Amino acid sequence: MYYNSGVDRKLIEILRILSEHNKPVGARLIAKKLEERGYKLDERTVRYHLRILDERGLTRNLGYDGRMITDKGLEEIKNALVTERIGFIITKIESLIFKMNFDVEKGRGKIVANLATIDKEHFKKAFQVMKKVILAGYAVSPYIKVFDEGETFENYVVPKGKVMVATMCSITLDGILHHAGIPVSPRFGGVIQVLNGKPIRFTDLISYSGSTLDPLEVFSAKGLSSVLNVVETGNGYILANFREIPMDALTKAKERLRKAEEIGIKGTIMIGEPNTPVLGVPVRIDKAGIALMGGINPLTAVSEAKIPIETRAIECLIDFEEMVNISRVGNFTKASF
Amino acid sequence: MYYNSGVDRKLIEILRILSEHNKPVGARLIAKKLEERGYKLDERTVRYHLRILDERGLTRNLGYDGRMITDKGLEEIKNALVTERIGFIITKIESLIFKMNFDVEKGRGKIVANLATIDKEHFKKAFQVMKKVILAGYAVSPYIKVFDEGETFENYVVPKGKVMVATMCSITLDGILHHAGIPVSPRFGGVIQVLNGKPIRFTDLISYSGSTLDPLEVFSAKGLSSVLNVVETGNGYILANFREIPMDALTKAKERLRKAEEIGIKGTIMIGEPNTPVLGVPVRIDKAGIALMGGINPLTAVSEAKIPIETRAIECLIDFEEMVNISRVGNFTKASF
Repeated sequence: MYYNSGVDRKLIEILRILSEHNKPVGARLIAKKLEERGYKLDERTVRYHLRILDERGLTRNLGYDGRMITDKGLEEIKNALVTERIGFIITKIESLIFKMNFDVEKGRGKIVANLATIDKEHFKKAFQVMKKVILAGYAVSPYIKVFDEGETFENYVVPKGKVMVATMCSITLDGILHHAGIPVSPRFGGVIQVLNGKPIRFTDLISYSGSTLDPLEVFSAKGLSSVLNVVETGNGYILANFREIPMDALTKAKERLRKAEEIGIKGTIMIGEPNTPVLGVPVRIDKAGIALMGGINPLTAVSEAKIPIETRAIECLIDFEEMVNISRVGNFTKASF
Repeated sequence: MYYNSGVDRKLIEILRILSEHNKPVGARLIAKKLEERGYKLDERTVRYHLRILDERGLTRNLGYDGRMITDKGLEEIKNALVTERIGFIITKIESLIFKMNFDVEKGRGKIVANLATIDKEHFKKAFQVMKKVILAGYAVSPYIKVFDEGETFENYVVPKGKVMVATMCSITLDGILHHAGIPVSPRFGGVIQVLNGKPIRFTDLISYSGSTLDPLEVFSAKGLSSVLNVVETGNGYILANFREIPMDALTKAKERLRKAEEIGIKGTIMIGEPNTPVLGVPVRIDKAGIALMGGINPLTAVSEAKIPIETRAIECLIDFEEMVNISRVGNFTKASF
């Protein structure tokens, strides 16, 4: 059994779900669990796949109660799993930097984006929170893109009853530096304490090359951010990140980041001097450090406002021309899509 | 103003709380917020500290409404903060390994422990969950220690209405190897997928030397574990970790780990061959990898069972002689403390 095709990946996913239950499971529950894992299959399709699994001896049909996985089925998942590879976040970052082709002079091309899924019913309120955070400057840029239910792009389909929002990811700025010939090393996602509107120091860090999870998603899940507090009082904790460049490239990097600022990409928090810590984080020998805003701050703020949101940081590429400046969008209405 | 003493640290913590509000805050709310951050001060004591802050011009008394922080107060926190240092988890691990003095031959001395705080009212149920997980073998050892409300040890005081539980941390085994002269490098906290009761592969990793947060606490907060599922069905995800030793030390390491097993410390999941990946994780040149159980699995299972629990992994040292084998404790009653 090979798992190259989308169908076979779904079969394995169904087997995995069955393996996590020690009683029979019906098609409806399987469909629900599949959706949680990002597979949209209706019950009818699940039943079709289950019949294939029955025929292969990987599941057993217990009638009305549902299916159970067989020993052969368990062996099958095991074989499928050992070929799956574990990947650190830095690999994904480098791949997106390589693929992005944004031209900062022309303001054209693909940028790196974060992606969030929000219930349609909560979207208006969520949008107001995002706008507030972005206008206060706690974002990489004011550019966003909203996808309505049913819309498709790349490998994504916006589920029914949901809206997806893309914000610009700070890795876009790493890409701008990289494509200007600067060897940039994205190093850490972090949390920065802000006092009186001024960033004071990094309070937490996770290395991109030492984690399979996105650091900023982790900080957000652990409740370490207080972006809304920062926007409202000037004090609290924001999500940010840290990279190094060779000290020789400092002048060119500053020039490129200034160029980006001219078209509204203002995510730079601090550019350090050679061999000098940035907000408490030391740099390696003959490097200079740069701290940038986390592009997910507006999305994290939505979660802080107790509005359900599912955020995936450093997720995909989006054409810059398709994004809109949030300051030009009024209170969000259906017509603004 | 210096912040060496406990009193001054509390003053700074009060200023921090005030800085996070843009309206006056009363002593009661401050006491509540302080407790969340681990400081037990009653309202009366908070008022005493607030008067000191008023006198120093760091806060302003607005009467019935409470206090606000002054500009001088904000400047004060800023100065206190810049001297605070950020630390990666590996530093804490190495410090605990250095300080522990457990003698595996004699079964005596200090081991490294995880610490959890549980509401007294939930403790009986939590204890049953922990016991189930430990007896199923998803722990480092069956030894635990329970502290009742009001008890003190090292810098801890068990708060009113709470119980604290210590489980053995897997870093204890790193300490055993280290004190046997083996240069051990704790590398990652991780999640291992278990199928049919057998560990299959690491599905997530975070490096100890690249994170200020404990990796296993992160995985638990992100909902990536399903320890209870593993105990009940043999399938799911457990918390684990990974270290490397020089390949030359493999024989001695195996002998030490066997010795530890003899006294019930059975946390070893897999010992790899030289230059060979362990459960999908590659090792560095001429190293061998060792995967161990996360000592917080029994505590994470409590959280999975929807019982409120606050867990701090790799937290402190505890005398092994003071711990009890959970299999010798019946259903937990007050008398068992």
